[in-house]
Amino acid sequence: MGAQLDAVEAALSAWVPADAPAGLGVAMRYGVLDGGKRLRPLLVRATAEAVGGDAGAALRAAVAVELIHAYSLVHDDMPCMDNDVLRRGKPTVHVAHGEATAMLAGDAMQALAFEVLTPCADDVHPMPATRQARLCALLARSAGHAGMAGGQAIDLAATGKPLDEAQLRDMHRRKTGALLLASVQMGAACGEVAPAVWQALTVFGEALGLAFQIVDDILDVTQASDKLGKTAGKDLDANKPTYVSVLGLDEARRQARALRAQALSALDAAALADDSRLRALADMVVERDC
Amino acid sequence: MGAQLDAVEAALSAWVPADAPAGLGVAMRYGVLDGGKRLRPLLVRATAEAVGGDAGAALRAAVAVELIHAYSLVHDDMPCMDNDVLRRGKPTVHVAHGEATAMLAGDAMQALAFEVLTPCADDVHPMPATRQARLCALLARSAGHAGMAGGQAIDLAATGKPLDEAQLRDMHRRKTGALLLASVQMGAACGEVAPAVWQALTVFGEALGLAFQIVDDILDVTQASDKLGKTAGKDLDANKPTYVSVLGLDEARRQARALRAQALSALDAAALADDSRLRALADMVVERDC
Repeated sequence: MGAQLDAVEAALSAWVPADAPAGLGVAMRYGVLDGGKRLRPLLVRATAEAVGGDAGAALRAAVAVELIHAYSLVHDDMPCMDNDVLRRGKPTVHVAHGEATAMLAGDAMQALAFEVLTPCADDVHPMPATRQARLCALLARSAGHAGMAGGQAIDLAATGKPLDEAQLRDMHRRKTGALLLASVQMGAACGEVAPAVWQALTVFGEALGLAFQIVDDILDVTQASDKLGKTAGKDLDANKPTYVSVLGLDEARRQARALRAQALSALDAAALADDSRLRALADMVVERDC
Repeated sequence: MGAQLDAVEAALSAWVPADAPAGLGVAMRYGVLDGGKRLRPLLVRATAEAVGGDAGAALRAAVAVELIHAYSLVHDDMPCMDNDVLRRGKPTVHVAHGEATAMLAGDAMQALAFEVLTPCADDVHPMPATRQARLCALLARSAGHAGMAGGQAIDLAATGKPLDEAQLRDMHRRKTGALLLASVQMGAACGEVAPAVWQALTVFGEALGLAFQIVDDILDVTQASDKLGKTAGKDLDANKPTYVSVLGLDEARRQARALRAQALSALDAAALADDSRLRALADMVVERDC
């Protein structure tokens, strides 16, 4: 996994501009470099590899997905949202660079994601227009009102309100799940896959996305802030519904394991040439302790 | 121009979802419907018409550009940026819907712009992938760090500092000019144009973008808030450099007229079949009183 991660870091560093004006580039780089598990980029690349997809396209898709994820964290941490001061072990972007610059940096990171997906024709690694359009379509839908932003809106409205398991699942399917699913689908879109394989990978991505969020909720109550690199226990403090508060810790753990089994069984159905990296990522999502 | 405007309003209303969760769709619609001059959508459609482009693609491009413009206003008005309470004659989005929802609505509007540009293959009006990719590329670059967001960062850093004319021009070329230029170029990309025509339209778009901002600065000091539908005199109050403060009112007016002449002369060079609507828009930009 180390070489995969290094390639993602190098690509992020190459494509997030240090020289964007008036400190904007510095804030963008602060928000996206040197931190995070890079789960989404790793998923994109592992899926592309499993389907024999174009590695250059997959690297662009990996960077684009991580830019969307990182921008959402920058905005989510701001005082008008979660008002958090610690992220990836560092002061959050608005603490380090001011609120206005943090908001603009997030906005510019979202635009940059689509820029990365649409290289010029004379780029050293051109991408067919059909692939560019498909990747933009998948990313836009997962990031927007029906996906991540919609999930955040539900999250915002849910603070202090009881949600049942179905409502909680719907919120997380959008808020976290949509972009994780898009990571898998964008990886698949870097190659050519049969509809049945696409469907199996979609089941894999959905199960993994939900498992990720359940584990996140578990870690929020079982780990300390210094381990997580972000403020622990904040959902509890904010009186936000979580899988742990709705299901209890034991049932949450059981569901995370069941979702991993479902994800791995979807991979069996997809019958890809080499899905070992995807399986390792499914394990990482459920076994991680930070 | 009335029928053109009606079509843009109808398309915006059709594509900005009322049912996005937890009030997000309501805030998005509040931020983008029922207001604004719609200069950018009109530029997209007029350019597409002048080059004999695909009207369906142009309507999508028009909506996408307006979504980017509208999201930038929503974020720009927030307390951490310009802290403005009046826009298009109504309370700003964060005043009406809260800061967190305003930020999310802006974020979702940006994603929606790229969603609108990448219709599914089974859409009633499909678009060739090459056109989808080209439109996404143009929009992403004009909205991001090298364009609008970068210009806003310069603007933020410039408050209270003297800028010379070249610095002011660079700021506005990015902050307002990039998206106006993209409107023209995206309209052109809805058809097939020769490189010389593309170049002439680029000169047109650049001149028009700069003229627009100079006139904006003039109106900021010569018109009242109720006429503008937004807070007048705010650049002066915020001690922000403007064309009026740098050049004086008379020279600013002279430059606006000179830029219109340059824009019209570029249209002469483009020699398009019917550029009457583009010429009318150039007049509107310079002659407008709000």
